[in-house]
Amino acid sequence: MEPATLPTLFYGVPQGCSFGSIVALEWLGEPYRLCRIEMLEQPWDPLFARVNPLMKPPALLVDGETLSESLSIQLHLAARGIGRGLGFAQGTRDYDRLTRMLGYLNTDFFASFAPLWLAYESGALEPQQEQFLRGIGRDEVVRQCAYLDRLLADRRWLLGETRSLADAYFSGIGRWVGYMKLFDTQREYPNLHRYLQALGDDAGVRFARNIEKDPHTARGTAFRGHVTLQELEPLLPRIQCPEAA
Amino acid sequence: MEPATLPTLFYGVPQGCSFGSIVALEWLGEPYRLCRIEMLEQPWDPLFARVNPLMKPPALLVDGETLSESLSIQLHLAARGIGRGLGFAQGTRDYDRLTRMLGYLNTDFFASFAPLWLAYESGALEPQQEQFLRGIGRDEVVRQCAYLDRLLADRRWLLGETRSLADAYFSGIGRWVGYMKLFDTQREYPNLHRYLQALGDDAGVRFARNIEKDPHTARGTAFRGHVTLQELEPLLPRIQCPEAA
Repeated sequence: MEPATLPTLFYGVPQGCSFGSIVALEWLGEPYRLCRIEMLEQPWDPLFARVNPLMKPPALLVDGETLSESLSIQLHLAARGIGRGLGFAQGTRDYDRLTRMLGYLNTDFFASFAPLWLAYESGALEPQQEQFLRGIGRDEVVRQCAYLDRLLADRRWLLGETRSLADAYFSGIGRWVGYMKLFDTQREYPNLHRYLQALGDDAGVRFARNIEKDPHTARGTAFRGHVTLQELEPLLPRIQCPEAA
Repeated sequence: MEPATLPTLFYGVPQGCSFGSIVALEWLGEPYRLCRIEMLEQPWDPLFARVNPLMKPPALLVDGETLSESLSIQLHLAARGIGRGLGFAQGTRDYDRLTRMLGYLNTDFFASFAPLWLAYESGALEPQQEQFLRGIGRDEVVRQCAYLDRLLADRRWLLGETRSLADAYFSGIGRWVGYMKLFDTQREYPNLHRYLQALGDDAGVRFARNIEKDPHTARGTAFRGHVTLQELEPLLPRIQCPEAA
């Protein structure tokens, strides 16, 4: 396959949930390229509006179309990973279980961190407001970690004994549990801790961490190098998406 | 099909996002039953933990398994609605477009209301905190409505000229735009307003509204009556889900 026709993932750093899509691509093992978006460098290149008018990574450029939303990227890659346990055929119970888990992670788990990110990123908050947000976020994160800890008591991965793309997605957002330093995860949620450790040791996850740290030296199994947004310009949907500003 | 083997949706009232799953079932047109959960009556019957250990509707009981998360229920029903434009085959671009839209609605759109619900439901907030949350929520909802308004400028439904289960899902959470009375939707977002009007006039949406108001008199096309959680007990997964508390 010519480089220009390889699927290309636009991923955001730092601490982006794009991380999980990189892991999914590595697990899938089919050649792909990456395009890095430094999320803290504002304003972004307006060209990115042709990738996603909502100006948010991740997005996957594939067959001339751009696909945004982590969940949708995971389900797209899951369809390519049927037979390897990464994804499942539509209409099966396993498919339902995967979409259920992705839906849960994408809403309840992800959203539980929203007040914490708000407190973290808003420099202009009064101490009382910041404390208020931290309290709400902490309660929510505790609830979700307790749930996942019970779930993982008798299984190795989120859906059972075989890793699926739900685990790939979690590899990105699950990092926030440690990042926020809200509690001693090992003591409070030993099953979740064990799972996070196993996930952290995975080769695809290690690669995604390396990519975040240093995009120039990281070596993956299916990774075929970086490309810039400007280089991709001719490949982006030519007509601005109607939903763009 | 015997009533006991009909798919059964557990739906929450009032203002629940379960609404969209009822609409999806009506659009699909295959016989189903409903089980009503009064969300404000606390504590809930602990039996519901066997439906969803996270104690949240909606959930769909189908073939002896319970499926939670709106997104997962919509994708399950979408697989049954392939060929009618309600859903699409895995691996196609239309499938990607549907999961992308569901993912967007399930995260950005849904989450934009979270600060508003928090301000609305927490009786114990200080006026300053309540105002703070309302401000954050309003800004987020405005951003999402502006996006949807541009998207709907040249299409009738969220994915184009044919309604899909993305519209069914939106029928529930899209109501919050009017409910929150943040702005004059017709003046500020005329395309979104037109779409919300069309959605509100849909027969399946009218049925879901009637079900919320009066479960005893509503008549749908595929609806086969209500059943109670107690009546369903023998049909629920017998062994408590490992993830339950």
